Amino acid sequence: MSVAVIDACIDVSRCHPPRLLDVVRWQPHARGRLEEAALQLCAEKGFGATSVAEIAERAELTERTFFRHFADKREVLFSGQQELNETLMKAVEQAPDSVSPLHAVGAGLDAVVALFVDRWQPARRRQAVIDATPALQERELAKLASLVTALSDTLSRRGVPATTARLTAELGVAVFKVAFERWIGAGDDDAGRGRADLGRLIHVMLGELASIITHG
Amino acid sequence: MSVAVIDACIDVSRCHPPRLLDVVRWQPHARGRLEEAALQLCAEKGFGATSVAEIAERAELTERTFFRHFADKREVLFSGQQELNETLMKAVEQAPDSVSPLHAVGAGLDAVVALFVDRWQPARRRQAVIDATPALQERELAKLASLVTALSDTLSRRGVPATTARLTAELGVAVFKVAFERWIGAGDDDAGRGRADLGRLIHVMLGELASIITHG
Repeated sequence: MSVAVIDACIDVSRCHPPRLLDVVRWQPHARGRLEEAALQLCAEKGFGATSVAEIAERAELTERTFFRHFADKREVLFSGQQELNETLMKAVEQAPDSVSPLHAVGAGLDAVVALFVDRWQPARRRQAVIDATPALQERELAKLASLVTALSDTLSRRGVPATTARLTAELGVAVFKVAFERWIGAGDDDAGRGRADLGRLIHVMLGELASIITHG
Repeated sequence: MSVAVIDACIDVSRCHPPRLLDVVRWQPHARGRLEEAALQLCAEKGFGATSVAEIAERAELTERTFFRHFADKREVLFSGQQELNETLMKAVEQAPDSVSPLHAVGAGLDAVVALFVDRWQPARRRQAVIDATPALQERELAKLASLVTALSDTLSRRGVPATTARLTAELGVAVFKVAFERWIGAGDDDAGRGRADLGRLIHVMLGELASIITHG
């Protein structure tokens, strides 16, 4: 198979249905398998001691496949970031013109909650790896900072003045961060899912925010 | 001079008045001179291309003196962080029991403003270096994250419930960040100082928060 054919298969959606010769290379759910393998290995031996080769081996894939999906070893642990970002921005963009900037962000956060349904266990395992690894904490902070910037830009495109957009974006990301921490930190139910409801926690935090500011 | 004597002089306050033999080693304003040299060199050739040896040479000090004051090259650009942190926490701790968490943080931010009087030019030059250097941006984000944690802990010690403390700390640091960016981004007056008033900008941002929430 030529390099061109392999390259065409990087975007797996274009390879569906796969031609016979492609089947050996087209790996269903490769991304998810690599993420799961990385989480397992990092939990077992730490992020620093885990290599890309080992992650690929555990996922029964090649290093080459790993690097088709992720730019580096850290990125496999931030796999959901892009989807979160896109989901949030799309919902904020699509909020009715009549709603306030904060309500538009609230609608965005509600949309994001759907991404975490039945994801409590992996989110919790991932957070344990991040908390144990300064280099990953740095990347997490950088991702959150770029989320604030993107959200602020999205609000600006709705006609929100710059300072309001920036502060509302900061508020929205702070609310999500704190709600997410509480969600992850809460106990699980008997089925091993989170006991707390992330969507409800976000609304609790938004209410708390209003209380802090109006009583301040 | 023995190593013990040199070590005793790391804290220069304990060496005052200096004994005759110490004079050659006691460098007045060494910290400030190293900071200024680092800012100059980073502005001229970038952070990556600037070495500790060059910073020390420009400041007419030794590398050894540099490492007495700073753990690594990045730290020389975060020299004021500890003072900012201490000033903020002290003012929040000392705010009257009767004031709300957000007002206590507001009092803390007012105290921090005093550190930046006549510091507009260096703050602006420093920010230009940070903005041009991803490794410094990462450290800036880590410092801000640790500021949120410290502020949240300080509020908790005032008896503020955990979630309220955390969200108020996030708000306070967000307000400071946005006000600081606006302050640095504004033009200068004829004397080369910032035209905007950092303290006023912080209060504008606090007012803007209230407006975002009440219209939210």
